Amino acid sequence: MIYADNAATTKMSREAVAAMLPYFEEYYGNPSSLYAFGQKAKEDLEDARKRIASCLGADPREILFTSGGSEADNQAIMSAAHSGAAKGKKHIISTAMEHHAVLHTLDKLKKQGFEVTLLDVHENGIVTAEEVRNAIREDTCLVTVMYANNEIGTIQPVGEIGAVCRERGVLFHTDAVQAAGHLPIDVKAQNIDMLSLSAHKFHGPKGIGVLYARRGVLLETLISGGAQERGKRAGTENLAAVMGMAKALEIACSNMERNAERMTAMRDRLIEGLDRIPYGELNGDRVHRLPGNVNFCFEGIEGESLLLLLDDKGICASSGSACTSGSLDPSHVLLAIGRPHEVAHGSLRLSIGEDVTEEEIDYMIAAVTDVVTYLRNMSPFWRDLVNGKRRHVFSE
Amino acid sequence: MIYADNAATTKMSREAVAAMLPYFEEYYGNPSSLYAFGQKAKEDLEDARKRIASCLGADPREILFTSGGSEADNQAIMSAAHSGAAKGKKHIISTAMEHHAVLHTLDKLKKQGFEVTLLDVHENGIVTAEEVRNAIREDTCLVTVMYANNEIGTIQPVGEIGAVCRERGVLFHTDAVQAAGHLPIDVKAQNIDMLSLSAHKFHGPKGIGVLYARRGVLLETLISGGAQERGKRAGTENLAAVMGMAKALEIACSNMERNAERMTAMRDRLIEGLDRIPYGELNGDRVHRLPGNVNFCFEGIEGESLLLLLDDKGICASSGSACTSGSLDPSHVLLAIGRPHEVAHGSLRLSIGEDVTEEEIDYMIAAVTDVVTYLRNMSPFWRDLVNGKRRHVFSE
Repeated sequence: MIYADNAATTKMSREAVAAMLPYFEEYYGNPSSLYAFGQKAKEDLEDARKRIASCLGADPREILFTSGGSEADNQAIMSAAHSGAAKGKKHIISTAMEHHAVLHTLDKLKKQGFEVTLLDVHENGIVTAEEVRNAIREDTCLVTVMYANNEIGTIQPVGEIGAVCRERGVLFHTDAVQAAGHLPIDVKAQNIDMLSLSAHKFHGPKGIGVLYARRGVLLETLISGGAQERGKRAGTENLAAVMGMAKALEIACSNMERNAERMTAMRDRLIEGLDRIPYGELNGDRVHRLPGNVNFCFEGIEGESLLLLLDDKGICASSGSACTSGSLDPSHVLLAIGRPHEVAHGSLRLSIGEDVTEEEIDYMIAAVTDVVTYLRNMSPFWRDLVNGKRRHVFSE
Repeated sequence: MIYADNAATTKMSREAVAAMLPYFEEYYGNPSSLYAFGQKAKEDLEDARKRIASCLGADPREILFTSGGSEADNQAIMSAAHSGAAKGKKHIISTAMEHHAVLHTLDKLKKQGFEVTLLDVHENGIVTAEEVRNAIREDTCLVTVMYANNEIGTIQPVGEIGAVCRERGVLFHTDAVQAAGHLPIDVKAQNIDMLSLSAHKFHGPKGIGVLYARRGVLLETLISGGAQERGKRAGTENLAAVMGMAKALEIACSNMERNAERMTAMRDRLIEGLDRIPYGELNGDRVHRLPGNVNFCFEGIEGESLLLLLDDKGICASSGSACTSGSLDPSHVLLAIGRPHEVAHGSLRLSIGEDVTEEEIDYMIAAVTDVVTYLRNMSPFWRDLVNGKRRHVFSE
């Protein structure tokens, strides 16, 4: 099996699993307890917080543990919006290609009377800092722009956007769920006020994430109750998962440069191979994209059939993102970069892992080429294109 | 070490850990993916949902996975309140001794214009169904009463309260975080509309819980984003933790009767022993209490010193609940049952496990007796009591 869906989730590393294990049956104490057995848990929790903070250029007090990226996104955006509203600022800037954890939270805020400007991301899927600057108003309380897109892998200029926001005194949040562990993060240098990440995207466990919030940024609770996490997130601390996340992030960060170089070469080989399929096109920017992300649209292809036939050939791939699978709507990301409806249904995302081999890349190129040809030969829609009854979207 | 803080958290069972392990490195697929590797994860997730539903007398479609008890409480109460408000009903009934995950959520709702009636729980810590009936008004949208209290272990008559609520057409939610795995739950027979539980209270993993919501009960999302959990809870499914929870709940439910019988005998032996300490009193009802819960107040004793000295003797115990440790306020639960401030600071909770031995019970009795005597001998407050300068709260 070739697992090429690392953007959906990753295999846990052996080291991250090993880091979790002692906390199930041995050091299971509640970190909020007074006795030494609980204090040991508390110390390990705080040590993990320090190590995670250090990977992000943050202070440990700025690290809040959540159940994952979605919770972190929800809490960050709700907090910034409501503290903005308290000062009469109810305008938020974002993009149309954010993750639904951001977009649906913005929808909730619209019902509360907030105004949301979604910036154009252009054909390459990238928004510029200049466009953010131009969109900022007197009543803007938050800019939320993702670091890297989960479907098409494009990387936003978060450092530049951060600088603009800092200059204008507007809070800047970035959903870094796809970026963390894969792209450099330095919240201070990049002027990031809030950042969300999720451990299972970098070989850590599922069910755990981080909300970084710069000191001075007011957080409101999303989950109220006990006094854990300095009163900002109730619920018994999930220490085992935190330990797994800390280990996975450390490994990812220390190998980042080497992994990125190797994966970029593999990615580009895959892109080159798939580029040879006629009437298909890469989605997203060719250069400013995650080292592991390849995403193509092929005319006349339904995403679902493509995935099932690739599965038969032992390739795990996806169309759109896992979070919206089962949905019949075309990808909102592909629509945002201007793909017409008829191709936005048929995208293929191959998100390769650090250990992918050249042989696997070549096998994927051959498999996708075969399957696309096979499916087109069966498709009445494709016949119309070939017969000239319908116009091509892409060139040959 | 004698771990007597099972109400705070429990050691994971070997079987629950074993149930999780395959999902870290082997079956790590995203359950929302289309390929067979993801579908296998989806099947296992749905199988676990069925098994958990069956332990609660629920339908699998009524089981929503959350990050724990606090999240489940928040979502249940917010959902019921807001769907009540849509019908013009903004009155909620609860008790003063609920967990903070309930009380703080009710505080949020009060700021949104809801009116909350907190029922008296009397000296024994129990509210009656009749009192709930009398408090229900035309505009009552929700009754939320915990199944068993986390500090003093008293068990509420949830079946009777459920019957009253069903009869009056009011939604009934119960925080069953302390009860699940320890007391019988049958949501249909008990007329429970919503129920929260958390796996780490019955030897399952931390960071995972359940919100049961009867079919027809409208849920709003607390964490918005992807379409997971039928669109009611965003975030990649935490399959490993779900598998651990399902296994732990099955074990707890199949051994429940035997465990309860044995633990009740141990608990009563411990209560009898501590009852011999003068000027101390059991908190909560003697009969209607969790099989593992012992909670005492001793005059002239500061909870913190007691815990630290017991820790020196190898006993892990708590004062109040872990969730509020570090707080200088007296326990809101002890105040609710009428304990005066001066003793509400000095409670001792010993929550024993299924495998506690008679020898351990006797050791705990001796240790607590010694420590209480030692601390009292050092205490100026106690000297005032002995000299008659201050009046005793309890009898000898």
